[in-house]
Amino acid sequence: MSDVRVIIHRDSEREERVVTTGTTAADLFVGERSIVAARVGGELKDLAYAVADGEEVEPVEISSEDGLNILRHSTAHVMAQAVQELFPEAKLGIGPPVKDGFYYDFDVEKPFTPEDLKVIEKKMQEIQKRGQRFSRRVVTDEAAREELASEPYKLELIGIKGAASTDDGANVEVGSGELTIYDNLDAKTGDLCWKDLCRGPHLPTTRNIPAFKLMRNAAAYWRGSEKNPMLQRIYGTAWPTKEELKAHLDFLVEAEKRDHRKLGNELDLFSIPDQIGSGLAVFHPKGGVIRRVMEDYSRRRHEEEGYEFVYTPHATKGKLFETSGHLDWYADGMYPPMQLDEGVDYYLKPMNCPMHNLIFDARGRSYRELPLRLFEFGTVYRYEKSGVVHGLTRARGFTQDDAHIYCTREQMAEELDRTLTFVLGLLRDYGLTDFYLELSTKDPEKFVGSDEVWEEATQTLRQVAEKQGLPLVPDPGGAAFYGPKISVQTKDAIGRTWQMSTVQLDFNLPERFDLEYTGPDGSKQRPVMIHRALFGSIERFFAVLLEHYAGAFPAWLAPVQAVGIPIGDGHVEYLQKFAAEAKKQGLRVEVDSSSDRMQKKIRNAQKQKVPFMVIVGDDDMNGDTVSFRYRDGSQENGIPFTEAIAKIAKVVEERAQV
Amino acid sequence: MSDVRVIIHRDSEREERVVTTGTTAADLFVGERSIVAARVGGELKDLAYAVADGEEVEPVEISSEDGLNILRHSTAHVMAQAVQELFPEAKLGIGPPVKDGFYYDFDVEKPFTPEDLKVIEKKMQEIQKRGQRFSRRVVTDEAAREELASEPYKLELIGIKGAASTDDGANVEVGSGELTIYDNLDAKTGDLCWKDLCRGPHLPTTRNIPAFKLMRNAAAYWRGSEKNPMLQRIYGTAWPTKEELKAHLDFLVEAEKRDHRKLGNELDLFSIPDQIGSGLAVFHPKGGVIRRVMEDYSRRRHEEEGYEFVYTPHATKGKLFETSGHLDWYADGMYPPMQLDEGVDYYLKPMNCPMHNLIFDARGRSYRELPLRLFEFGTVYRYEKSGVVHGLTRARGFTQDDAHIYCTREQMAEELDRTLTFVLGLLRDYGLTDFYLELSTKDPEKFVGSDEVWEEATQTLRQVAEKQGLPLVPDPGGAAFYGPKISVQTKDAIGRTWQMSTVQLDFNLPERFDLEYTGPDGSKQRPVMIHRALFGSIERFFAVLLEHYAGAFPAWLAPVQAVGIPIGDGHVEYLQKFAAEAKKQGLRVEVDSSSDRMQKKIRNAQKQKVPFMVIVGDDDMNGDTVSFRYRDGSQENGIPFTEAIAKIAKVVEERAQV
Repeated sequence: MSDVRVIIHRDSEREERVVTTGTTAADLFVGERSIVAARVGGELKDLAYAVADGEEVEPVEISSEDGLNILRHSTAHVMAQAVQELFPEAKLGIGPPVKDGFYYDFDVEKPFTPEDLKVIEKKMQEIQKRGQRFSRRVVTDEAAREELASEPYKLELIGIKGAASTDDGANVEVGSGELTIYDNLDAKTGDLCWKDLCRGPHLPTTRNIPAFKLMRNAAAYWRGSEKNPMLQRIYGTAWPTKEELKAHLDFLVEAEKRDHRKLGNELDLFSIPDQIGSGLAVFHPKGGVIRRVMEDYSRRRHEEEGYEFVYTPHATKGKLFETSGHLDWYADGMYPPMQLDEGVDYYLKPMNCPMHNLIFDARGRSYRELPLRLFEFGTVYRYEKSGVVHGLTRARGFTQDDAHIYCTREQMAEELDRTLTFVLGLLRDYGLTDFYLELSTKDPEKFVGSDEVWEEATQTLRQVAEKQGLPLVPDPGGAAFYGPKISVQTKDAIGRTWQMSTVQLDFNLPERFDLEYTGPDGSKQRPVMIHRALFGSIERFFAVLLEHYAGAFPAWLAPVQAVGIPIGDGHVEYLQKFAAEAKKQGLRVEVDSSSDRMQKKIRNAQKQKVPFMVIVGDDDMNGDTVSFRYRDGSQENGIPFTEAIAKIAKVVEERAQV
Repeated sequence: MSDVRVIIHRDSEREERVVTTGTTAADLFVGERSIVAARVGGELKDLAYAVADGEEVEPVEISSEDGLNILRHSTAHVMAQAVQELFPEAKLGIGPPVKDGFYYDFDVEKPFTPEDLKVIEKKMQEIQKRGQRFSRRVVTDEAAREELASEPYKLELIGIKGAASTDDGANVEVGSGELTIYDNLDAKTGDLCWKDLCRGPHLPTTRNIPAFKLMRNAAAYWRGSEKNPMLQRIYGTAWPTKEELKAHLDFLVEAEKRDHRKLGNELDLFSIPDQIGSGLAVFHPKGGVIRRVMEDYSRRRHEEEGYEFVYTPHATKGKLFETSGHLDWYADGMYPPMQLDEGVDYYLKPMNCPMHNLIFDARGRSYRELPLRLFEFGTVYRYEKSGVVHGLTRARGFTQDDAHIYCTREQMAEELDRTLTFVLGLLRDYGLTDFYLELSTKDPEKFVGSDEVWEEATQTLRQVAEKQGLPLVPDPGGAAFYGPKISVQTKDAIGRTWQMSTVQLDFNLPERFDLEYTGPDGSKQRPVMIHRALFGSIERFFAVLLEHYAGAFPAWLAPVQAVGIPIGDGHVEYLQKFAAEAKKQGLRVEVDSSSDRMQKKIRNAQKQKVPFMVIVGDDDMNGDTVSFRYRDGSQENGIPFTEAIAKIAKVVEERAQV
């Protein structure tokens, strides 16, 4: 037994240790129950891995991103074992970790029922308690084929080593290196209980799974293609502690309540009619009010900021997207062409920029006109695969609050500064306040434009980002080939992160469109181009705000700002006078003059999340006052008639939440 | 010689006359030089026609619609004769009268030059003076083929008797009855000078052509198809008097000056880039201001009128247009489909109505919600043939200010009344004031819905139209199969008529979409549907206003409402203060601080048709005043600073013209 020298990295600490041959990662971290795997020379390994001389070893905490993936992946194996114990005829698909959990696909005669899920969950708890060991074993393709002869989908994966991938792009079955099988071995006897083709790594034993739950089942095509058999997928979640599991389940309940598709239906804001098609929404009158107010305010602010408004069509000859290059690198994201005029292909536009470039180029431009800021609410169409389309947040048609700024290189820094300040201010106006910024910088392998201008632009973006005093997350190499980018990430009321605005430099399109302006000395110069969208898409921003506010919009955005609720029929007319006065001031006020009883009317207004309920009875009528009832049930009585209108108007004016 | 009894109709008079056999129409109207043909038993005849016993004869005045067509058709013959005398190798196409003139197509080696046109015109004057007679002669197909052996296009027409038609749908060569040739005969000798296959009728002689002019030439495919040879077309105009010819030419100069495509370019308002395609316009910043102001004002007025705003996508599954029936009766006007999701056809929408119906139908509706007025600035796409596309007035993509009103049958009358009043008021707000209405009523052969509801709807439309006190022109049988319609025709500043708004009842779509509301008694009822667009399309209305105002928009619509012009550099700052103050009040004011001289700046502002030039020199600066110069060159000096801003604001507020 010779000595083995290893280096252990923990955060920024570095420790050299000399151990005997055969020492495993588990030995190195013995007693540290939160460590579930090791990263050795950059690669994830089981704790059972025997370290070799000179290797650099890093512990993997269960609560780290890698640790969570391993936990969830192992739980997926436990689930698959439980399913095959209960349904021996079930054939295995794949079972990767995904965000917050895992799934496994099975080929079974009929879909799993909710009762099946309960039974499977119970069986999993049993397996968890058994404390089976996860044990790694390298096999040849031939051996694997023999061992997995009864698993047709696994056999298919062996043949395409390294090529199989899940819907999410993960590949947990076979890596590009050696082929491995993970055995689940009995804790005492070491007998084989179950096995799976898998590249690992895994937890040491099933007992290392602290908390899990099965969530739901769904159908899924084998390898994501409609041409393949339909499998049954079970989703589950797993967490390092029972508390975290509970917090996650609570979060899901809250998120479910706020689901914009659900609220959109309940509040009659929008729908995505099947007759029109996936990802193509219609806005109903109440959603139309919110959207119009959103747009109006954005328009006003853009006008104040010196943007000029343009309009461009939704379809164009393909030629334009050849010039822009989209047909080279974005064709998959575009709708198929329509052939007009005997042989000319027309496309729906996936982006507005090429058309704005034509407007820039419609006549000669002088440096005096720069920065030229062209703004448009431009509706674009993108052929998202039907599987990823989701409500308003991932749609096939959506309207960008899109602008392109053309400026001189000297103006670039100030313009980026202005833009970012404007963007953040506008997001705050809509009620989002928790931001961080992400700076995507040059991929040294793939970029256009000079190093010098990239450097200057990146420095400028960093400076303007830092000036905002917000956390700045680097995304090195994450820039598109045509320029660096800042994106604004925002957290909503329940802590979810949404990517909102982007400010994107572009050194490519001005070249491709040969855009020029005349400098003070009469020479032709190439402008710098900045793409920026604040909402990203109105539809998506609408959905984010809807979920952020859980439908309880601040009064300035609410479709109905106040609803008059008479205690008796005798108070209707008085409320109608109130509503008429309020409407004169541009407020959206309705009176519930239906035959419902008052309590029902209050419940209806609460369900509709109306900010102000204006309740009137005899006392109010005699005193020329009204009473406010708020969404939280609190009440404010005897507010003088005119003051009440002014109060609502003030809340609207200030874009305040009540 | 036996007697022939004829009845002569003039206006409402009726005269019986007994004449001898062989008496021609010319004999009946001898000495009446303004009469150029006769309508006999409903059919147009040459004056040389010999009347028969019992026939009813009506004189055709040269200035009547029929008379003008005959004049222009005869002038086309004279032109063709002139061309063949000058270019003997030219082969004849067709030569019909068109609006305000005529054309004739020729197969020639090379296009005519402007010089050619002058020579042809001169030759025509010569032929006119010769006083050749137009003489009709019936021929058999065989004889015609022999006589016209050297005219291949004419030969083709003989074969398809009755089927040949011009681009405008006219058919002047061959009727459905007997085949005729018109000879041009020498006034003295009666010798044949020229001949043409033609169904006539014609003027008696070439001397009856009072005034004509050749206008321009263009290329045109034989019979309008790109598969046929390209011919050369010469356009001309002809009028009953020299004065009318001059008035027409003056009108053309004026119309040319106002051509929205020309002004759109000069004022940098919009363009139709070739890279995007025919009929698909982009609005530049200045055009964008006008359009946005047009839209904002329309939105505000619609809101006040109780419309609710919806948003719908531009593409949809074809299924929706099967439900609506558009794919049955409107497919030719639609863009070709795009196939998505392996086999589903998606179409660009040519109309918004089917999508609004889905919004109506998104949930159960109660009579309490009616009338429900759904409004949208909805961009639609229609596959206009490339030959008819014209600037913004006939485009392939345009935005309708579209609304659909759903109401009960009882509400129909009041709703139509409100709508028409609203429509006319809004058009007046934009500066159009000269209207007449057209009422399109049932085609008894082709309609859906009960007679009773048509009757009621038509009566209602007539009543609401008459209430407006505007001329009401009947269009019997002109209604679409799904309901009667009122259209608003408006005259612009130079007297041209444009069809603007339409208010269209629809008894068909509510059936096809099975639209229902719950009545007060709980029963399901079918709503009445009204389609209405005020502008028709924003793009077209924009073009109409641009031509109406010849680019000199009233201040509320002008992209730049005032431009500050300093007499010297020392006055720039003062004007910038003025501009900043004015901007605070929402005015669009610029200062021309360029190095141009003052006179140049004034010329530039005039060219840009800016309503207010704000000129400042030392006197103004010392007196805290400014001077206004208007587009007509008049000037108003020494207006106090604040008063000047208030004055501009007032003109804007009142939507007045200065």
